[in-house]
Amino acid sequence: MIKAGIIGSTGYAGAELARLLLGHPEVSIVWYGSRSYVGEEYASIYRNMFRFVDAKCLDDNMEELAQEADVIFTATPQGLCASLVNDGILEKVRIVDLSADFRIKDVKVYEKWYGLEHKSPQYLPEAVYGLCEINREDVKRARLVANPGCYTTCSILTLYPLVKEGLVDTSTIIIDAKSGTSGAGRGAKVPNLFCEVNESIKAYGVASHRHTPEIEEQLGYACGHEVLLNFTPHLVPMNRGILATAYASLTEKVSYEEVRAAYEKYYGGEYFIRLLPEGVYPETRWVEGSNFVDIGFKLDPRTGRIIAIGALDNLVKGAAGQAVQNMNLMFGLAENTGLTQAPMFP
Amino acid sequence: MIKAGIIGSTGYAGAELARLLLGHPEVSIVWYGSRSYVGEEYASIYRNMFRFVDAKCLDDNMEELAQEADVIFTATPQGLCASLVNDGILEKVRIVDLSADFRIKDVKVYEKWYGLEHKSPQYLPEAVYGLCEINREDVKRARLVANPGCYTTCSILTLYPLVKEGLVDTSTIIIDAKSGTSGAGRGAKVPNLFCEVNESIKAYGVASHRHTPEIEEQLGYACGHEVLLNFTPHLVPMNRGILATAYASLTEKVSYEEVRAAYEKYYGGEYFIRLLPEGVYPETRWVEGSNFVDIGFKLDPRTGRIIAIGALDNLVKGAAGQAVQNMNLMFGLAENTGLTQAPMFP
Amino acid sequence: MIKAGIIGSTGYAGAELARLLLGHPEVSIVWYGSRSYVGEEYASIYRNMFRFVDAKCLDDNMEELAQEADVIFTATPQGLCASLVNDGILEKVRIVDLSADFRIKDVKVYEKWYGLEHKSPQYLPEAVYGLCEINREDVKRARLVANPGCYTTCSILTLYPLVKEGLVDTSTIIIDAKSGTSGAGRGAKVPNLFCEVNESIKAYGVASHRHTPEIEEQLGYACGHEVLLNFTPHLVPMNRGILATAYASLTEKVSYEEVRAAYEKYYGGEYFIRLLPEGVYPETRWVEGSNFVDIGFKLDPRTGRIIAIGALDNLVKGAAGQAVQNMNLMFGLAENTGLTQAPMFP
Amino acid sequence: MIKAGIIGSTGYAGAELARLLLGHPEVSIVWYGSRSYVGEEYASIYRNMFRFVDAKCLDDNMEELAQEADVIFTATPQGLCASLVNDGILEKVRIVDLSADFRIKDVKVYEKWYGLEHKSPQYLPEAVYGLCEINREDVKRARLVANPGCYTTCSILTLYPLVKEGLVDTSTIIIDAKSGTSGAGRGAKVPNLFCEVNESIKAYGVASHRHTPEIEEQLGYACGHEVLLNFTPHLVPMNRGILATAYASLTEKVSYEEVRAAYEKYYGGEYFIRLLPEGVYPETRWVEGSNFVDIGFKLDPRTGRIIAIGALDNLVKGAAGQAVQNMNLMFGLAENTGLTQAPMFP
Repeated sequence: MIKAGIIGSTGYAGAELARLLLGHPEVSIVWYGSRSYVGEEYASIYRNMFRFVDAKCLDDNMEELAQEADVIFTATPQGLCASLVNDGILEKVRIVDLSADFRIKDVKVYEKWYGLEHKSPQYLPEAVYGLCEINREDVKRARLVANPGCYTTCSILTLYPLVKEGLVDTSTIIIDAKSGTSGAGRGAKVPNLFCEVNESIKAYGVASHRHTPEIEEQLGYACGHEVLLNFTPHLVPMNRGILATAYASLTEKVSYEEVRAAYEKYYGGEYFIRLLPEGVYPETRWVEGSNFVDIGFKLDPRTGRIIAIGALDNLVKGAAGQAVQNMNLMFGLAENTGLTQAPMFP
Repeated sequence: MIKAGIIGSTGYAGAELARLLLGHPEVSIVWYGSRSYVGEEYASIYRNMFRFVDAKCLDDNMEELAQEADVIFTATPQGLCASLVNDGILEKVRIVDLSADFRIKDVKVYEKWYGLEHKSPQYLPEAVYGLCEINREDVKRARLVANPGCYTTCSILTLYPLVKEGLVDTSTIIIDAKSGTSGAGRGAKVPNLFCEVNESIKAYGVASHRHTPEIEEQLGYACGHEVLLNFTPHLVPMNRGILATAYASLTEKVSYEEVRAAYEKYYGGEYFIRLLPEGVYPETRWVEGSNFVDIGFKLDPRTGRIIAIGALDNLVKGAAGQAVQNMNLMFGLAENTGLTQAPMFP
Repeated sequence: MIKAGIIGSTGYAGAELARLLLGHPEVSIVWYGSRSYVGEEYASIYRNMFRFVDAKCLDDNMEELAQEADVIFTATPQGLCASLVNDGILEKVRIVDLSADFRIKDVKVYEKWYGLEHKSPQYLPEAVYGLCEINREDVKRARLVANPGCYTTCSILTLYPLVKEGLVDTSTIIIDAKSGTSGAGRGAKVPNLFCEVNESIKAYGVASHRHTPEIEEQLGYACGHEVLLNFTPHLVPMNRGILATAYASLTEKVSYEEVRAAYEKYYGGEYFIRLLPEGVYPETRWVEGSNFVDIGFKLDPRTGRIIAIGALDNLVKGAAGQAVQNMNLMFGLAENTGLTQAPMFP
Repeated sequence: MIKAGIIGSTGYAGAELARLLLGHPEVSIVWYGSRSYVGEEYASIYRNMFRFVDAKCLDDNMEELAQEADVIFTATPQGLCASLVNDGILEKVRIVDLSADFRIKDVKVYEKWYGLEHKSPQYLPEAVYGLCEINREDVKRARLVANPGCYTTCSILTLYPLVKEGLVDTSTIIIDAKSGTSGAGRGAKVPNLFCEVNESIKAYGVASHRHTPEIEEQLGYACGHEVLLNFTPHLVPMNRGILATAYASLTEKVSYEEVRAAYEKYYGGEYFIRLLPEGVYPETRWVEGSNFVDIGFKLDPRTGRIIAIGALDNLVKGAAGQAVQNMNLMFGLAENTGLTQAPMFP
């Protein structure tokens, strides 16, 4: 059994990690970390876990945790993982960091968008961006995996084949994304109260959301040149789910079948990517609770654009599920171990 | 592998059965029945099942299904199962009927509350009321199990120890229940449209809901005399979940500990019943997606009443999960096989 | 024009007061009080008020406010109004207190249920319980009105004719109430976050909610003897609305018509009480945004009980609307001035 | 008093018309038309109207209605108004058509996008596109007003000053819109059931939605040349509200202030358009129940694009409120008569 520790286990992503790891046949959780709830019973904070978890919450002592665990998941605010990791820890334990600390290779870009000093940029070169479908082989060998952001996973996977194959003019990419409210975290803030979110939709982080450079960097790797794009997230009155509606101008006249072939080329063998039939578009309800990404697209001959749409569960493929997928790869397990449940509807 | 057929697989309960059975290690589904969608791909109706189910929907031919399956689940409107079942079928296959056809022993009571003629009352004596926690041994031997209703499962389990032990005056029982909207089914009706249900709560079936006699009959067995009670269901703007708030006058002065001992006596060993700590009351969010029933209670010395509260997921323990639990018992499997997932939150 | 000041104008009830008073033909708001937001533009906190309100938030200086206003609404936490009011203020200005400070005549009962020392019990005798339909004449003459609680308004009005006419055994009364989440206030607390409330229902304050003694006191006045009852509130994933489902044993055999006559006797001339046709029960969606209380009931001959159900908008008739109704009475205006909008649906 | 008739009064837009006209000081409703509910009490279908409306539903007899009314609102499916209108009717009564029949001047474009034969194209030249802020003077003189669509009102008003002033390259316009579910109407369809819409978001009508040519035509008038754009609507789990997030490349380097000046030029005197402060973006919650359009925008120097965002209540400014606004203009009333309520929140 793989011994897993979770730092930040009482946030929504951390709690989803607990749920998924409890159902994973090869893992036992040895550490429920939560700075805010040290000493409290985990199941008193997440009562769905009553009878499943007897443990109390522990602090953020990564040194001690590195002794006890084979893998550490850090589902914590930006900056924490970078401030705690060191050579000794990395020699003992594998880390899947769900924060943004190691996602962006250029430390200046990170510091600009996140407004933080990076405490351990020396690990940026070895950190692997854990988008398994694209970096699978690197993940297998990694000690430190930067688990991608929720919006970025959805946005990149929706556009990757188009960009990689040069089918779209990257200077025309616009991503309009919509997320359920669990993406805003479990902090007690007025804007996230039920009555503030319910019966409303809004854009936020307009032309300034931190997932923008992450998407740009990864799509830049795909096409071999710098990408600048617009990314606008919106808050939707639902618990889970991200929908990314991406627009781009096609570089040439192509048929639906030709574009589909590009998607099939990269995703044909992927367990977690479901390319939908022609004329069918993703809806977040169909992926809820699962690690799937559903993708559909349409060509608009009137404007010469493609509209490509992706959907995932922000807490699963957008966070905890992808983290488990990364762990599976790092430990030589089948990639979908513990992640084969059908989505739950309604 | 147990070969299972689902008649009525495109209703919400039938679809939840499909989801649970697909995750069950000992079952394969051989028949996706759906009168409304015969010939259509199941995964085109429930797109969460894309890549999980390749089958097309079949009709209600129970004779043929009895040849192919080891167990048939009928997740159909009242009357259908009773109209199709016969000796030949019952000799070949076990049936778990999710409708009300075989729940009520007195055919007159059934016909009065349901306004239907019962087409096969001859099977009422052998049908077992499939509330596993109470009728476990009978279920194991049954050919025909009447899977309890969603409200009734929640109501009966919440009150059973109190009634069985004579702790409450059954003539004072009032059950005020609240259900998510999946309980109203997938039929296209104006009152179930999003805008009609959202941002509202209402009572319905006031003093006339069909689950009333089912609750009364089962609690009557528990105490050995007739029970008459009030049961009022309410529709809540959420997908899943039932909460039953039950009130009754205590027959004598008892302490919290004494009442708790009664609950422990009957439920102490039950996997699917979680008796909550003192001062904690059930919330439907903590059982969503699982087969658990959470129960809590409070004594009110001012009025001499107990308020006992139960919560479950109406599609799981209130329908499909309990049906699988019954199947497990009927086939000699561990009762919780395929039903051990932690509830999903949020 | 009546000059009105609102202390606590940035809570949900205070904001609803602002909305209603802005539409009131005889009122101008002269003071937007908000301890938390002093100096901030009101319309930056409630952006629906952009272009409607130019004012900035002011503090709780009731002395100064008494100079400027004809009426003060205190939509503040318990204890604040009682700590600020004094003879000088009451000589200058009328007060409608939306907190519980002056609702309960017995200071010991108040202090027990609220856990607070009452700072000005000397005003309890003159304070009028502002349930206009019952205490109309007293309200007209009042300097200090205690605006009833949301649950209590709904519960009392639903049961009043039954209790007043002796049709029910008050020792059997049980009120199971359900509220939208705006009733929980705008404080930043984890249990009120969108993801915690959405897709769930729970009971809270079981056998201990503070509205219990308020209901008991008022129903006690109606029948002339002490009333003890059970009241259980539930939190519903919707913004507005309260539904109270009340149960009681009838004292004698009565017909639907006889009970209806009792309701008509007290409510036949009431503008804000809508007695629904037989067989129709209240739903919160039909009163949203309005000051109406909808009431329906059913007799259950099987159990000898009546089930009486009431619905209102907790922010209007349950708080701000009733406060305006009280103000109208106090200032000699038509009782429904500014309150005649039809409910908004959906 | 203006005598108004509503054809299609039991759809959501028709019911909102009833609500607004009941609160309008210069109007009385003389005809509640509803083909589906002829002879039924209006208040039994919309119980919020209990005590407000005593009338029963009437049929679609526009000839008779033209005798009785001064203005007819047709809140009906496409094609109905065009099939009923004739010279005799237009001589007697003014018509505000909430369907699409007279919105698009080119009958071929209408017939292509709507798949319907237009039954009275002879009235297209005189029909005025009732976007009051742009066509105010024409509306005042009109007999027949085509009330704009919900998405189109939001989209056009958000982009109009930019297009009119030549600030954006119209070939780069992309509008990603999100709507509450009341926009889908009150028809009993499975995709609009609560459990299907709740907890999900989806795009629909991808590159094929009928509001596309309407937006293109109107923006084409603004800039003086043909406009082709992408418009993608999404369904959001909320009752009311539309948010349009529009993207376009700027034609030159402009400052925030310069763009703002363009908006002020066209909207500075508009009662119903609220241009938000810099850095603030529209949220549908802040316009709910009102006739306002909130607009905000941001320039992105990285990509050279503007992101302009608009929000309105689809049933008010997107349908019934705008229809009343048009009526006010047609009858010489102040444009905001009956439409001055503050938005309701929460």
